Amino acid sequence: MPGPCGRARAEAASRLASLTKPPGSLGRLEEIVEFLAAWQGKPEPSLDRPLVAVFAGNHGVVSQGVSAYPPSVTASMVANFAAGGAAINQICRTFSLGLKVYELALEVPVKDITADAALAEKEAAATVAYGMEAIANGVDLLCLGDMGIGNTTAAAAIYFALYGGKAADWVGLGTGLDGAAMLRKITAVERAVALHKAYLTDPFQMLRRLGGREIAAMAGAILAARLRRVPVILDGYVVCAAAAILHALNDSALDHCLAGHASAEGPHAEVLRRLGKKPLLDLGLRLGEGTGAALAFGVIKAALACYTGMATFEGARVAGRL
Amino acid sequence: MPGPCGRARAEAASRLASLTKPPGSLGRLEEIVEFLAAWQGKPEPSLDRPLVAVFAGNHGVVSQGVSAYPPSVTASMVANFAAGGAAINQICRTFSLGLKVYELALEVPVKDITADAALAEKEAAATVAYGMEAIANGVDLLCLGDMGIGNTTAAAAIYFALYGGKAADWVGLGTGLDGAAMLRKITAVERAVALHKAYLTDPFQMLRRLGGREIAAMAGAILAARLRRVPVILDGYVVCAAAAILHALNDSALDHCLAGHASAEGPHAEVLRRLGKKPLLDLGLRLGEGTGAALAFGVIKAALACYTGMATFEGARVAGRL
Repeated sequence: MPGPCGRARAEAASRLASLTKPPGSLGRLEEIVEFLAAWQGKPEPSLDRPLVAVFAGNHGVVSQGVSAYPPSVTASMVANFAAGGAAINQICRTFSLGLKVYELALEVPVKDITADAALAEKEAAATVAYGMEAIANGVDLLCLGDMGIGNTTAAAAIYFALYGGKAADWVGLGTGLDGAAMLRKITAVERAVALHKAYLTDPFQMLRRLGGREIAAMAGAILAARLRRVPVILDGYVVCAAAAILHALNDSALDHCLAGHASAEGPHAEVLRRLGKKPLLDLGLRLGEGTGAALAFGVIKAALACYTGMATFEGARVAGRL
Repeated sequence: MPGPCGRARAEAASRLASLTKPPGSLGRLEEIVEFLAAWQGKPEPSLDRPLVAVFAGNHGVVSQGVSAYPPSVTASMVANFAAGGAAINQICRTFSLGLKVYELALEVPVKDITADAALAEKEAAATVAYGMEAIANGVDLLCLGDMGIGNTTAAAAIYFALYGGKAADWVGLGTGLDGAAMLRKITAVERAVALHKAYLTDPFQMLRRLGGREIAAMAGAILAARLRRVPVILDGYVVCAAAAILHALNDSALDHCLAGHASAEGPHAEVLRRLGKKPLLDLGLRLGEGTGAALAFGVIKAALACYTGMATFEGARVAGRL
């Protein structure tokens, strides 16, 4: 896997130090600029074609009564994305972000993970490969988003398989469960992980047995971005399940990713800690769709604008430190 | 002082509940929309004329060796704002925010607070009144910013006078002090507060004796915004000193204000706690100029875009909760 470009990072750091502000006073904005320079491999990073890629899939596990909404909502929300009516559409418009929605065989949900593997080996591999297309056409920054009724159950199963403890530690309220449904969700996660236990030493098996098409495709997108050194902004709880699979395979696999935000979906902050990521934003969002990543893009855009547009102490004839 | 409009807030909350997302899932974005509706007094708030007002002043206390930069930098940075070369210019451009800089007699610094009152009674009152102009011309959201070499010393003195403890509790590194200069700054704050002690039961006396022109003007701006029900986004450590004076006069005086960010200037998080404000962002900024408030405006703009642009469950024919 390609790594960051140390020289581009150093050049960016040097230019940041020359700008009309006390050294380091733009805080994480400076860290963002260095990150973009390092991963794009150039001291003048670009954000000409930033994209939010939203992957949508359906989940057989909804038959266990684990979601507050019917599975038809996945397709309805994909139509809503196309019509421009969802939250992610408005945030993309606000920050001039591209948006592309990948609809993954919604009419054929992946199998119920409490009874079967979500995906066959071949389909899982094909779905990962399909997700790699997200960075086509010169995308220079990729925000990831998800849509899929039932997918927080799949993500919880992945986290429980990866990190252990109790199933309840990794299960959140999703779209807003009541107590009884929450218990059903915890039980479904326990049963799924127990069923597939013999295979769960291999992160790829976790992905195909416990995940879903959108999660597999997002893992492919993150990987493809790495191979092409495209910086990635992770969204919340479900996107991070795809990321966590890659992280389990190689603990530097997410070095080209920033965490856009800490989601209000309960266990997400702990997931970020395990991934070694400090989120840019913490605004209590728990919507998915890439909304937290897209909001973080506003900060990233401003960071790059400061870097490219600010005068230097020398150019503006501002006196330096005493 | 006018209060928020409960009816507009309730109407906004009701519309938020109808949008295509689980209830509450946009977290603080929903809180922002309700805040805008309540203070603008209309269920469809506007952000047609958002403004960053930056107030700049100079400080006699710099003669005590409390800043890492010479006082000439205040005027140089005002010229840099005019030329479009500062960080705040780039952030305003990114989010289509207006920017207006108020230059407050930079050639006549306020008096050294360790030896005298910063401002005479009359000038302090006139400066507060002058600051009230910031909301002229139909500004519908006001972000505040400051520039002034030496002004973190003035702000520290105000906090120490207001909140007690030790002077060192309220002093930060400013533009980046070394240890010896930090000790001089703490000593200056101690001496200033000791000198004026007899008068420091009155917040207005704190403002005029320990503050500076930009701090007095910002207090006026916050007050004027309240009288006209214009929402305010506070920036960091120095802006909050102006806000803290008003808060000391009346603990609901800042109800029309959001904290844009937590500054990395050491004591700022504790100041926000005392003001009862939870910052929108926490990005390690310690620059001033309104940069933290302007970055937060990106989130606010996106929040309103979601509110005005999203489809409803009914309109988009998305099924509701099971």
